[in-house]
Amino acid sequence: MLCRAQYVYEAGGGEHTTLENRGQNLGNIRDATAIFDPIHPKDIMDKLLKPALTMGVRAHKPAPKKKKAVKTDGAEEEVEEFKKPPLAAMLNSFDFESVAREVMEPQAWGYYSSGGDDEITLRDNHLAFQRITMRPRILVNVREIDMTTKILGVPASIPLYFTATALAKLAHQEGELAIVKAAKKAGVPYMLPTLSSYTLDEMLEARTPDQVVFSQLYVNPERSRSEEYVTKLEKAGVQALFVTVDAPQLGRREKDMRNKFTQQGSDVQGDDEDDGAVDRSQGATRAISSYIDPGLNWEDVPWLKSITKMKVLLKGVQCAEDAVMAYKAGLSGCVLSNHGGRQLDTCRPGIEVLPEVMEAIKAEGATKENFAVFIDGGVRRGGDVFKAVALGAQAVGVGRPVLYSLASYGQNGIVRMVHMLQDELQMVMRLAGTPNIPSITEKHVITTNLADHIVPLPIDNLTHKTYQGLEPAARL
Amino acid sequence: MLCRAQYVYEAGGGEHTTLENRGQNLGNIRDATAIFDPIHPKDIMDKLLKPALTMGVRAHKPAPKKKKAVKTDGAEEEVEEFKKPPLAAMLNSFDFESVAREVMEPQAWGYYSSGGDDEITLRDNHLAFQRITMRPRILVNVREIDMTTKILGVPASIPLYFTATALAKLAHQEGELAIVKAAKKAGVPYMLPTLSSYTLDEMLEARTPDQVVFSQLYVNPERSRSEEYVTKLEKAGVQALFVTVDAPQLGRREKDMRNKFTQQGSDVQGDDEDDGAVDRSQGATRAISSYIDPGLNWEDVPWLKSITKMKVLLKGVQCAEDAVMAYKAGLSGCVLSNHGGRQLDTCRPGIEVLPEVMEAIKAEGATKENFAVFIDGGVRRGGDVFKAVALGAQAVGVGRPVLYSLASYGQNGIVRMVHMLQDELQMVMRLAGTPNIPSITEKHVITTNLADHIVPLPIDNLTHKTYQGLEPAARL
Amino acid sequence: MLCRAQYVYEAGGGEHTTLENRGQNLGNIRDATAIFDPIHPKDIMDKLLKPALTMGVRAHKPAPKKKKAVKTDGAEEEVEEFKKPPLAAMLNSFDFESVAREVMEPQAWGYYSSGGDDEITLRDNHLAFQRITMRPRILVNVREIDMTTKILGVPASIPLYFTATALAKLAHQEGELAIVKAAKKAGVPYMLPTLSSYTLDEMLEARTPDQVVFSQLYVNPERSRSEEYVTKLEKAGVQALFVTVDAPQLGRREKDMRNKFTQQGSDVQGDDEDDGAVDRSQGATRAISSYIDPGLNWEDVPWLKSITKMKVLLKGVQCAEDAVMAYKAGLSGCVLSNHGGRQLDTCRPGIEVLPEVMEAIKAEGATKENFAVFIDGGVRRGGDVFKAVALGAQAVGVGRPVLYSLASYGQNGIVRMVHMLQDELQMVMRLAGTPNIPSITEKHVITTNLADHIVPLPIDNLTHKTYQGLEPAARL
Amino acid sequence: MLCRAQYVYEAGGGEHTTLENRGQNLGNIRDATAIFDPIHPKDIMDKLLKPALTMGVRAHKPAPKKKKAVKTDGAEEEVEEFKKPPLAAMLNSFDFESVAREVMEPQAWGYYSSGGDDEITLRDNHLAFQRITMRPRILVNVREIDMTTKILGVPASIPLYFTATALAKLAHQEGELAIVKAAKKAGVPYMLPTLSSYTLDEMLEARTPDQVVFSQLYVNPERSRSEEYVTKLEKAGVQALFVTVDAPQLGRREKDMRNKFTQQGSDVQGDDEDDGAVDRSQGATRAISSYIDPGLNWEDVPWLKSITKMKVLLKGVQCAEDAVMAYKAGLSGCVLSNHGGRQLDTCRPGIEVLPEVMEAIKAEGATKENFAVFIDGGVRRGGDVFKAVALGAQAVGVGRPVLYSLASYGQNGIVRMVHMLQDELQMVMRLAGTPNIPSITEKHVITTNLADHIVPLPIDNLTHKTYQGLEPAARL
Repeated sequence: MLCRAQYVYEAGGGEHTTLENRGQNLGNIRDATAIFDPIHPKDIMDKLLKPALTMGVRAHKPAPKKKKAVKTDGAEEEVEEFKKPPLAAMLNSFDFESVAREVMEPQAWGYYSSGGDDEITLRDNHLAFQRITMRPRILVNVREIDMTTKILGVPASIPLYFTATALAKLAHQEGELAIVKAAKKAGVPYMLPTLSSYTLDEMLEARTPDQVVFSQLYVNPERSRSEEYVTKLEKAGVQALFVTVDAPQLGRREKDMRNKFTQQGSDVQGDDEDDGAVDRSQGATRAISSYIDPGLNWEDVPWLKSITKMKVLLKGVQCAEDAVMAYKAGLSGCVLSNHGGRQLDTCRPGIEVLPEVMEAIKAEGATKENFAVFIDGGVRRGGDVFKAVALGAQAVGVGRPVLYSLASYGQNGIVRMVHMLQDELQMVMRLAGTPNIPSITEKHVITTNLADHIVPLPIDNLTHKTYQGLEPAARL
Repeated sequence: MLCRAQYVYEAGGGEHTTLENRGQNLGNIRDATAIFDPIHPKDIMDKLLKPALTMGVRAHKPAPKKKKAVKTDGAEEEVEEFKKPPLAAMLNSFDFESVAREVMEPQAWGYYSSGGDDEITLRDNHLAFQRITMRPRILVNVREIDMTTKILGVPASIPLYFTATALAKLAHQEGELAIVKAAKKAGVPYMLPTLSSYTLDEMLEARTPDQVVFSQLYVNPERSRSEEYVTKLEKAGVQALFVTVDAPQLGRREKDMRNKFTQQGSDVQGDDEDDGAVDRSQGATRAISSYIDPGLNWEDVPWLKSITKMKVLLKGVQCAEDAVMAYKAGLSGCVLSNHGGRQLDTCRPGIEVLPEVMEAIKAEGATKENFAVFIDGGVRRGGDVFKAVALGAQAVGVGRPVLYSLASYGQNGIVRMVHMLQDELQMVMRLAGTPNIPSITEKHVITTNLADHIVPLPIDNLTHKTYQGLEPAARL
Repeated sequence: MLCRAQYVYEAGGGEHTTLENRGQNLGNIRDATAIFDPIHPKDIMDKLLKPALTMGVRAHKPAPKKKKAVKTDGAEEEVEEFKKPPLAAMLNSFDFESVAREVMEPQAWGYYSSGGDDEITLRDNHLAFQRITMRPRILVNVREIDMTTKILGVPASIPLYFTATALAKLAHQEGELAIVKAAKKAGVPYMLPTLSSYTLDEMLEARTPDQVVFSQLYVNPERSRSEEYVTKLEKAGVQALFVTVDAPQLGRREKDMRNKFTQQGSDVQGDDEDDGAVDRSQGATRAISSYIDPGLNWEDVPWLKSITKMKVLLKGVQCAEDAVMAYKAGLSGCVLSNHGGRQLDTCRPGIEVLPEVMEAIKAEGATKENFAVFIDGGVRRGGDVFKAVALGAQAVGVGRPVLYSLASYGQNGIVRMVHMLQDELQMVMRLAGTPNIPSITEKHVITTNLADHIVPLPIDNLTHKTYQGLEPAARL
Repeated sequence: MLCRAQYVYEAGGGEHTTLENRGQNLGNIRDATAIFDPIHPKDIMDKLLKPALTMGVRAHKPAPKKKKAVKTDGAEEEVEEFKKPPLAAMLNSFDFESVAREVMEPQAWGYYSSGGDDEITLRDNHLAFQRITMRPRILVNVREIDMTTKILGVPASIPLYFTATALAKLAHQEGELAIVKAAKKAGVPYMLPTLSSYTLDEMLEARTPDQVVFSQLYVNPERSRSEEYVTKLEKAGVQALFVTVDAPQLGRREKDMRNKFTQQGSDVQGDDEDDGAVDRSQGATRAISSYIDPGLNWEDVPWLKSITKMKVLLKGVQCAEDAVMAYKAGLSGCVLSNHGGRQLDTCRPGIEVLPEVMEAIKAEGATKENFAVFIDGGVRRGGDVFKAVALGAQAVGVGRPVLYSLASYGQNGIVRMVHMLQDELQMVMRLAGTPNIPSITEKHVITTNLADHIVPLPIDNLTHKTYQGLEPAARL
């Protein structure tokens, strides 16, 4: 259980402990600090895995009949609690997010929803799809729409997979197990996370006999531990290995960092005692090098390929040059991703990098068959899937929408979320005149403004504050 | 009457019924589900045509002297009702929209005002006109301004027609009949909708003897039914047939979908009972293929041309290639349209597609005489009409402004709405130095930014929240 | 007095009357309807010149010690009146506008501040200057800054003139007389308006012996009346004649039109009585052709030149072709203007048209000596003057800033407003490394984005409403 | 002490006084008006250095337990005072700014935070960095990140220095002394300001024996005084002299100017007594020429070089031509700067000018060794430092972040502020695949939109006010 891991960590002072199911087993929060430390600084334990949360694994807020609120005049009053809408009222992925924000513990919400620095990339990820304009064709027979496809050879109901996300138990008690099951129901592959809150074995057991999953990997400085882990995945029939290459260090997520101080209140030292030089993140950074190897580089790729027969892909590529290098290194593909906007801020969304990458790898002779390109980040609508496919992606990964729908309605929520995306994609395909996946081409979209990162000049306050805006008749 | 159709539908469980004035008669809501189903899922009946609405065909809210409102402290209070301004206070098309929003039933308003997905295209349709800049000329004799023109050979008081819109009775009891009469008074053609709330015969009877109308067509999978309908139109003297090609499936209009749940309240099943796989829209989609043929394609065009001597045009073209194919197929023209932003989101407004189309068809030898190009979507100002004409459109279609002015002031409202557009266009023509329609050319506008779909980078909250804006003296 | 003119008009039913100081005398509101009608529809008389306003010529609101305001709970309460800041607190032109908005009668404010249609051009006029970026030079001797210049050969303290604006009495009892005197004190030329609220003689008498003024002209359909008027100007020593060519019809200014209905309240007819066809502006349009000739065209230019030895310029040019035609027709210059955004909406600001015009007329051989180019519209900062000069303008016209500073502080207000602009321009010149007017060149500015008319894609509400913005520490 | 200087000034009517430590000594507010006058008009003394502020040198607001606030119903109520967060809660430079705004005296805050005219450039300075997009590389060994570098040959912990800012005592009693000490702790050079609130000697004494500082210089019209000052700097071991060339006149900072009137209240003369011609800034401008030479120009550069062996650089270059001239004149480098947006508005941020300058000087043969280019303005994130280095800057200057962190937490605040930037830069370097400063290249950033100054077209109010925005499910 999650809570045990925590207490071990607390007691052990960060030292490695020996628990059952140890080994490398990075895919399992049960083996505790060895797994959790690498990517999260100590304080994430404090704030995310506090007893109240972990003892009952309560990811949801309790549901009081009435909330107390402080009125303007200082008196308390009862206000109506948030009333969760029925699942059938969820019409799109944003609906799930809006419900999740209400029902999740603030710390868990903060952890999932936060992004790097100013969260510009976090938000730009979805907005970038709106910089792509549809160019639909008419009078095509669209009686039958077939959005099924193959992802790395695995049949899928839609060109979409659930990407790896950490600590699903913060969303829902069933955590990754619910995601495995929902993936099956929805007919899409799930990329098992290294930083799961259930053990790898538990996740694998949750599969149906015929269910195919992928896996994500953080490479350990002790190469042997990664080898063990990869071997275990391969034996369990996992089909592809996505090596994360965009997280040699934990991104600075201030919304998340902020929660800590808000929580701790006044027991934090005053500034008299603080000489300003205390730098906790330095410690965190040092810790990282113990579990995720920030020294991983292109020279390690041959070794990676040597330890498994699974397809090996890179997750986190952000420019053409690196995609070409991956192709030339004999890898099976790559994910154009900025880690959900959680790492480097003001970089490009995967969808924006896609045209540059497709052009470059084609020039090198890559084909859809020998090198698969995926994107993730900001996929919230069926139309987003369409645009990614049009520009050459084999499929898209979704992360937060899975967590948010899980947090708000459990396994069924995830399935409905996918169904909404399928509904949307079906409509887009029908209206675009593209009855199946291969018929979707780059001629169906316009990308003129895709690469524009426009920051309007600051507002002229004096002009705006002296101007009296027009009002339509009914508002006068 | 509308209500009868509904009860038939309700009782018959969606089965076809035999009513008077049956046949194909797609232009008539009286023959009920056979007509209504094709394009609208079952639930539109539930929510739009509920007894309260249909029994008295009450499209307008009742007008209570006082509304009840819940105060902050929980107590009810009386607030002043909305007071409709006099018709003469309507200065532009937005005024009608603002009044319609107040006086219409929320469901009817939701149905008319909603658009596909995020409603980006819905709104962009009008904004696109502002991406075109006027380039007026001076010292031209503009004593007399003549904005009359011919639309498909039919004289019109302004290069504008009323495009087909569904279910006008939701706006006003007189529905399409009022539109027919207003079109005559305003001197513009009306494109009769297939999905009317009055029968085709009733609409045709509302014409004056010399009044010319057009008709819109959804092609039925049973071709013979469409042939019957077209024959009827031709016999009645209808001059042109606009075949809708951008609606093989109903667009997802969430504002509209949302209304349902808001209404149903707590009697919708909880998420325990819902396995997330219930997908109502699948049903709707299947239903569609019964009445509107999603299989319609270019190979059907020769048949379309063979069944009538009316001019046949395509409504819903969105790129040059399809306009060229329409021209080469011997059709009489096309409407560049995205269905009022109700179908595919993040596509281009008709006005934006226009330059691309004009260039392409001219290169193929098309002339204004042998191939007419129209646009619709977002026309709200006389200047919008000017810009469309400048870029090569023979005329523009207006839809929602007709419904909103009908909803707020009936037939007179529509006439005034057109007069406002004429006032505006007269001014624009005089100030642009273009005394008549042929004098308006592409040199009178600048389209540099027309194709720009700019999505600014997300706002930097920290910068904005730490900055203290300037204030002019009187506000300090 | 203004009021007499009004009553004559009211009584005379729009007929011409015979008052003292008649003749053409377009520069004079005293001769009433003959002058006022041409450019303003009848209703402007009703709403702007109502007895309360005109009897005492009260342009300012009365100053109650306390205003009544309705509280949230329905009870009335007293709120503090607006307290006018001291003149010395006016730091820029916006300050005057913000004060004017508070102290002016709503109708007068509405008349001055309104623009055509959606008021996009009205606002864009100033914002366009911000699309020009400064490119300052360093280490230039800027000990002495000399911003004096000549405007059409007339010495001026700054490259700026007061352009013609109608009905200054609505701003202040001293109206145009105060402007004449302020122009002298500020050392800039004033372009006397045809539609003044004082007579031409009164305006001319307000001059000091050595003060040079210009004049604006609306050409009358009866050419002889214009000839009379021009002859009078020439005899009085007026140096240049600016013929307005962008107002063959009154712009639609809805803010202004709206005031009427707000005022009339419930005594306007309901929509039952109104058949929607009543179109008052048609009347206005017809009326216009009686006083301002919408038939004026290039063939009239030789006549214009023949009736005077004054320099003749065109006011309201908006593209290169017309500037070239003016130059080739032997005129002395032109003003690039959109009439303060009051006529045609979504056209270009004068400053944006400037580079196109300068390039075209230079190619035709025009020089600064034989063809003067001016701009007006949106000049609010000294930096705006700099940018116009850098791009080739001999000077800029300011209109509303004169009226607003007049309305708020009378003649002294105008002088201070100019001094603020001089302060600003002095700073800009010193910081740009340009010690005098001739040293200001196009190399001191960057115009890359000047012609961009960017309309961002509509906001994605779901994304924005589910996102939780970052907060800086002190706001948590 | 600051207060003495003030009283001398007040008493002496602006005359030069003879205090200890006189000489040129521009670096020292103790020698009072001779130093303070040059760059600030008389009124800055009135408003910034009023007795309450200076007697106790109280830069911080007193901390009442409760603030009085006026409630809506007119009654006073007690609201909670601002509670300063612990230093450890400061996560970025904006946090310090937000705290500074709460704890500083309004006049001091106004003085620091204000910018020229509309403060467009002030704000654009930081936003410009967001117009640069990151282009990170993967699979680079980033185990060790080394951000140390040399600035003009001086070792630094990060490519960053504290730029000269005036009057640090307004932020904190320890003023520049705290900055000197914090610079040492943080391992970065400090550019001593001429307009310091401690004497040059005091600042120099605050150094540790091995601490290297730079100095900023305003050139005096009496060249001998500047020579004295420079000689003193050189003797004290100062390593480089940054001659300010963008401030021949004080920028117009209206937020700052406004404070005066707000403060003085009703004792300012009414407009009857004011003829509008009183122009205080004229006086200020004249005063400036007494202490800072607005006549300084390129011909003075040989003299500047002749009086010292220190490296001489220009601070305030804004275009390629001037950088080239500086290089050709044999200077050691330049700072691309707009003086923190405090001087000329609507000019370019230093970061935007950088590519143009680098290209031009390289074409002339300049190298990083013989001509150092710096930028300042808007640096608020570690990523900003990265982007500047990528585009060729040797280092960046920070000004306001130093003052704000000083104001809110004293010396420790400054150190923590730098540590936060180091944390951020470390992350950016690791995630970008650039383990040390030389590895950061222009290929790691995208500058396509850097030079775009986009001002969106004014908002269409009628469209926006009639549209009903979508809401996610949880907000309905």
